Amino acid sequence: MHRRILLTVAYDGTDFHGFAYQEGVRTVEGELARALAEATGEQPEITGASRTDTGVHALGNLACFDTASTIPPERFAVALDQYLPEDLRVITSEEVSPDFHPRKTGWSKTYEYRILNTPRPEPMLRRTTYHYRSALDVPAMHEAAQFLTGTHDFTSFCSVHSLSPTRKRTIYECSVTAAEAGTHLPSPGSLIVIRVTGSGFLYHMVRIIAGTLLDVGTGRLQPAVIRDILESRDRTLAGRTAEPQGLVLLGYQKGETQCSTDS
Amino acid sequence: MHRRILLTVAYDGTDFHGFAYQEGVRTVEGELARALAEATGEQPEITGASRTDTGVHALGNLACFDTASTIPPERFAVALDQYLPEDLRVITSEEVSPDFHPRKTGWSKTYEYRILNTPRPEPMLRRTTYHYRSALDVPAMHEAAQFLTGTHDFTSFCSVHSLSPTRKRTIYECSVTAAEAGTHLPSPGSLIVIRVTGSGFLYHMVRIIAGTLLDVGTGRLQPAVIRDILESRDRTLAGRTAEPQGLVLLGYQKGETQCSTDS
Repeated sequence: MHRRILLTVAYDGTDFHGFAYQEGVRTVEGELARALAEATGEQPEITGASRTDTGVHALGNLACFDTASTIPPERFAVALDQYLPEDLRVITSEEVSPDFHPRKTGWSKTYEYRILNTPRPEPMLRRTTYHYRSALDVPAMHEAAQFLTGTHDFTSFCSVHSLSPTRKRTIYECSVTAAEAGTHLPSPGSLIVIRVTGSGFLYHMVRIIAGTLLDVGTGRLQPAVIRDILESRDRTLAGRTAEPQGLVLLGYQKGETQCSTDS
Repeated sequence: MHRRILLTVAYDGTDFHGFAYQEGVRTVEGELARALAEATGEQPEITGASRTDTGVHALGNLACFDTASTIPPERFAVALDQYLPEDLRVITSEEVSPDFHPRKTGWSKTYEYRILNTPRPEPMLRRTTYHYRSALDVPAMHEAAQFLTGTHDFTSFCSVHSLSPTRKRTIYECSVTAAEAGTHLPSPGSLIVIRVTGSGFLYHMVRIIAGTLLDVGTGRLQPAVIRDILESRDRTLAGRTAEPQGLVLLGYQKGETQCSTDS
């Protein structure tokens, strides 16, 4: 009997060439497939939810596969530990229905973009934050972020290399907050976190949002200009694609149906 | 004219064989010496404050050297960026008096030992925390830590390989706190931080304190037993030497003279 198993996976993306399998390079999907083959003796085909880029991290990406293994569904998380590299872990595993598809759930997902805003870089955080030296105006960034919520055509915030047939997406919530120097930050400054929850995201969308909000933080752009950039549907008017190491896929809101705040 | 320069250095200790120079392996001192030689054309001798072990991190270790370079003292921090690997950074640099010695300052120093107390490991934190799966009793750990404050013979909390002529040290403050799931911890559980400030620490002392407080956290030891362990001057009665990756040298309290709370 075959079961379909859903894995919630976490990884430090620094040393992976992204999630999606590519011949000859180290990918999350490739390492998962190898570990599953070793654990089950099968060659399961993996379907991932988010194909994160090189250097991008995840705390709750999703991956599915079918298996006839006798390993109990909820034991896969721990059973795979011995076969996986330590920068990749399965957090939970569970059986799902045979027609479950991780890209067709309708679940919303949340990303964070983390900016270490200190005068000097911090080696312990170099892999998991983007370091920005000069002071940033966090309230202005948060104000700007509010223009992104709702359902919009996000062409301005999408890589020109995107293959998506439609550029319409819904952002349910977008906040910019600063955590003061704490356990991880004894140096003056703060960790600025852009957190965005949406129905789905276009190619590079969160990193372009981060690059544009950085321009608001420095004063180069006024917050209300975000509305004009959205309406222009012109990628060149938004900011740059921010570096990958600041981006973390926090996870999916499983089963919740969020109310869209259409604008 | 020669000046003596004091550097405050931060590093991710994962890929270093500790601070102290050793022929043929990658050390913090070795990388600093190489970078200074490239920046100044000199071969400066470096004197470090704390000779941290392999895998131990620092946010504020200290290192001194003498130079005839025309680089302004406070510019060394930024000037060295291009010559240093990204897991090592000089945070500040300043001129000090010619008789300054980083191990003879009388300054107190603070370490943190960070325990990720979650059911499953978290790849993004694997290099900078120690993962412990089962629930820990944080108030009991904090209660136990209070028996360590004051001036004591710390033989029980010192590696048998220590070469220190005296085992008497003063701990000014030792706390154990839990940060709830936050930016870095979306999974259930918490980051438990042991923070200890003292006049100085014996070889492996903070890691043995952490290993012993872990035994208190699991209930294997009662908090008040710490007093008996201290009095026994017997290393075998304390806990194990906790793994290095949880340990971070936060820094030195420059110039402050702390009041000892002798017991």
